[in-house]
Amino acid sequence: MSPAGTIREAIEKHKDEYLETLFRLLRQPSISTQGVGVEECAALVAEILEANGISARIMPTAGLPVVYGERKAADDAPTVLIYGHYDVQPPEPYEEWISPPFEPEIRDGRIYARGAGDNKGQFVAHILALKLLDDLGLMPKLNVKFLLEGEEESSSPNLPPFIEQHRDLLKADLLYAADGPMHPTDRPVVFFGLRGNLKMELIAVGANRDLHSGNFGGPVPNPAWTLVQLLATMRSPEGRVLIEGFYDNVVPPTDYERELIARMPFDADAVKRDLGIDEFDGPPELSYYEKVMFQPTLTITGFNTGYTGTGAKSVIPSRAVLKLESRTVPNQTPDEIYAKIERHVKQHAPGVSIRKLAGTYPSRTSPELPVSRAIVAAVGEAWGVEPVVTPAIGGSSPNYLFTNVLGIPAIWATYAPADENNHAPNENIRVDDYFKGILASALVYRRVADELATR
Amino acid sequence: MSPAGTIREAIEKHKDEYLETLFRLLRQPSISTQGVGVEECAALVAEILEANGISARIMPTAGLPVVYGERKAADDAPTVLIYGHYDVQPPEPYEEWISPPFEPEIRDGRIYARGAGDNKGQFVAHILALKLLDDLGLMPKLNVKFLLEGEEESSSPNLPPFIEQHRDLLKADLLYAADGPMHPTDRPVVFFGLRGNLKMELIAVGANRDLHSGNFGGPVPNPAWTLVQLLATMRSPEGRVLIEGFYDNVVPPTDYERELIARMPFDADAVKRDLGIDEFDGPPELSYYEKVMFQPTLTITGFNTGYTGTGAKSVIPSRAVLKLESRTVPNQTPDEIYAKIERHVKQHAPGVSIRKLAGTYPSRTSPELPVSRAIVAAVGEAWGVEPVVTPAIGGSSPNYLFTNVLGIPAIWATYAPADENNHAPNENIRVDDYFKGILASALVYRRVADELATR
Repeated sequence: MSPAGTIREAIEKHKDEYLETLFRLLRQPSISTQGVGVEECAALVAEILEANGISARIMPTAGLPVVYGERKAADDAPTVLIYGHYDVQPPEPYEEWISPPFEPEIRDGRIYARGAGDNKGQFVAHILALKLLDDLGLMPKLNVKFLLEGEEESSSPNLPPFIEQHRDLLKADLLYAADGPMHPTDRPVVFFGLRGNLKMELIAVGANRDLHSGNFGGPVPNPAWTLVQLLATMRSPEGRVLIEGFYDNVVPPTDYERELIARMPFDADAVKRDLGIDEFDGPPELSYYEKVMFQPTLTITGFNTGYTGTGAKSVIPSRAVLKLESRTVPNQTPDEIYAKIERHVKQHAPGVSIRKLAGTYPSRTSPELPVSRAIVAAVGEAWGVEPVVTPAIGGSSPNYLFTNVLGIPAIWATYAPADENNHAPNENIRVDDYFKGILASALVYRRVADELATR
Repeated sequence: MSPAGTIREAIEKHKDEYLETLFRLLRQPSISTQGVGVEECAALVAEILEANGISARIMPTAGLPVVYGERKAADDAPTVLIYGHYDVQPPEPYEEWISPPFEPEIRDGRIYARGAGDNKGQFVAHILALKLLDDLGLMPKLNVKFLLEGEEESSSPNLPPFIEQHRDLLKADLLYAADGPMHPTDRPVVFFGLRGNLKMELIAVGANRDLHSGNFGGPVPNPAWTLVQLLATMRSPEGRVLIEGFYDNVVPPTDYERELIARMPFDADAVKRDLGIDEFDGPPELSYYEKVMFQPTLTITGFNTGYTGTGAKSVIPSRAVLKLESRTVPNQTPDEIYAKIERHVKQHAPGVSIRKLAGTYPSRTSPELPVSRAIVAAVGEAWGVEPVVTPAIGGSSPNYLFTNVLGIPAIWATYAPADENNHAPNENIRVDDYFKGILASALVYRRVADELATR
């Protein structure tokens, strides 16, 4: 029997035990934004690591603790770092849950509970896979480290300093994680990076008070017009950002990335219908996914001034507030893009104030690396279908900590269903996918160990 | 003794009676927006008209009644129509009034009460002046009609149909009214028109729901950008409106109007300091008052989209709302300007919806007419100073009903002090200005009768 067959058979035998491990985790609330049960959950995660032959430590941060795990094969063995998060979203609104969020229940082949998909049912697969390979004598010569954080649902505020401070401890050849939903076609996704972001606030002021637009209209500056005219210098009607140097560091997709995009399922009409739009935005020569993965944006996420209720108010507003965001791509950095935008604002509207609210780096790993292909193959073998191989996703995460700070490839897969309802009531993972996730993690260990050993 | 001297002396003798008439009016609440006491006040106004030899009728409208008064001299005599309003603003906040708003009190030479300046203390002067001239045998051969409305503080919704329906009744050679505050230099103002206005709402929609700006940023249209880029086509950074034909019907100021503007007190630095601005807006070749009186505007009075609270929200808004206003000047009309703006929107952003919320015509009377000069002279004689002669004010009112519908010159003066606190607590009129107002109205009757008789 092939190793995969052996593993599959062993999983079949341990099903009840694997479900019970996940159910214990799901019964333990761990709502980071509300500070509910997180410390208790950290202790439980450490216990599960230890029970699976992985030495565990609960490590403090300025916020909620990281659970660190390590199973060492040999000093000269390659190392994979596993990332996951044991905290969950708040379960509200309770009344929309069919079964209580912290009392896991199986219905129609799915495990329903807060955290079932995001992320307990995915990261625990990596732990169980390791013990399983050990028990079967199939574990390759591979060191495995676990970084399981408790603040992902609170935007990981303490992860950057934690990783900076523990570079040596976290030293590895590869980051692997499973989080997020599968493609709507039920194929697992493997993705290789995310966009960064930069969030800004701009404020324009006119007179020191709102003024009557009749009595003062004409000679008195209107901060709404100031912002509108500034914005018009920043982006062409076709969607090109006009800020000097904005695209300087943008790395275009490789031929292979373009090929991957072309292979991704995409029904333009269905997407338009779902969104209720007639046409897509942005430069027409770029494809939908090229825009989402390889093009930076400049997005108005908020604009408020004057009166916009029923009817009208005759007012020259004294103040206009703009929230502006840029989703960035390699090799743009938040500081570089902020400096360019700030310079543009100073040049075109010196009276407008701008400040940076937040910034995250983009991250990217080449899908052409041998470990990249190894992971795609492992995940594909586990599900028996070709994964949707996605060069990047449009959102942002602290993934740059792995690619840019630790300097290692970082590759992500998804074990939860497309309709996992993460961040919503009735969150779930398919029972079958949970077991396939364990298989996938086991095959990932074996395949990446082979690739890393041959370096 | 000159007629003015005789009148002044007679006013001196009747002071107590004139104060008591005004106090009776001020004791009667007449808050049109709250429907408090308005009918009772209409009856009292009619009683005061009758008591002063003017036949009065309370005339219904679809809202609150008009009090109409008439004193006929002769069929072939010229006619002046007097406009005023007997309704008042709500008095709130009560706690900021030093004496109760409907218990008039004299302090430091001023009468304090809601309506003292706006408009009871001004329109009653016209009534008392008529009786006084009659008693003195100084009333010229002049028909006088009174149109005293009860909804001015509610934006006069029923005045347009009332005037349309009663064109014959209201037929006159001239409209005269006293309302509003004097110039801060304590000189009365005489003004000859107002700008019109046009209020619009524009709505842009993108997707059928707010979307994650990371996951969807790039290919999905952002209605905020749609409106910004539309707006940028509508107005140059220097403040010129770029809508085709927008300025076609704008009548530039005459040489005399420019001369009047040049004579108006204006301290640019003081105005900037008061408003807290460094520079004025709009085409730099135009003076402050030319912009306010003779230039139309396109003003963003409100713009709202996305999230503008603390921090930031990663959202592509599904909808953006814009309130846009144009203050118009002769001979622009609301329909013409709306049609031009609507056409521009259809051309540049066909997906954006636009609708008209309200529109008022501009109005203008030439300050060079003999009656115009007569009124300036009469008001100047009453106060013993040259009035601030103002070709127009920047705000809007139903004054076009007189100039455009009745087709007569419409000239306005101000009898209340610059700090009359209209629409605010502690509204007031100076005792002395109240009596000077009676004198001014008397002199206006005499001078305009002379001018109109010689036509």
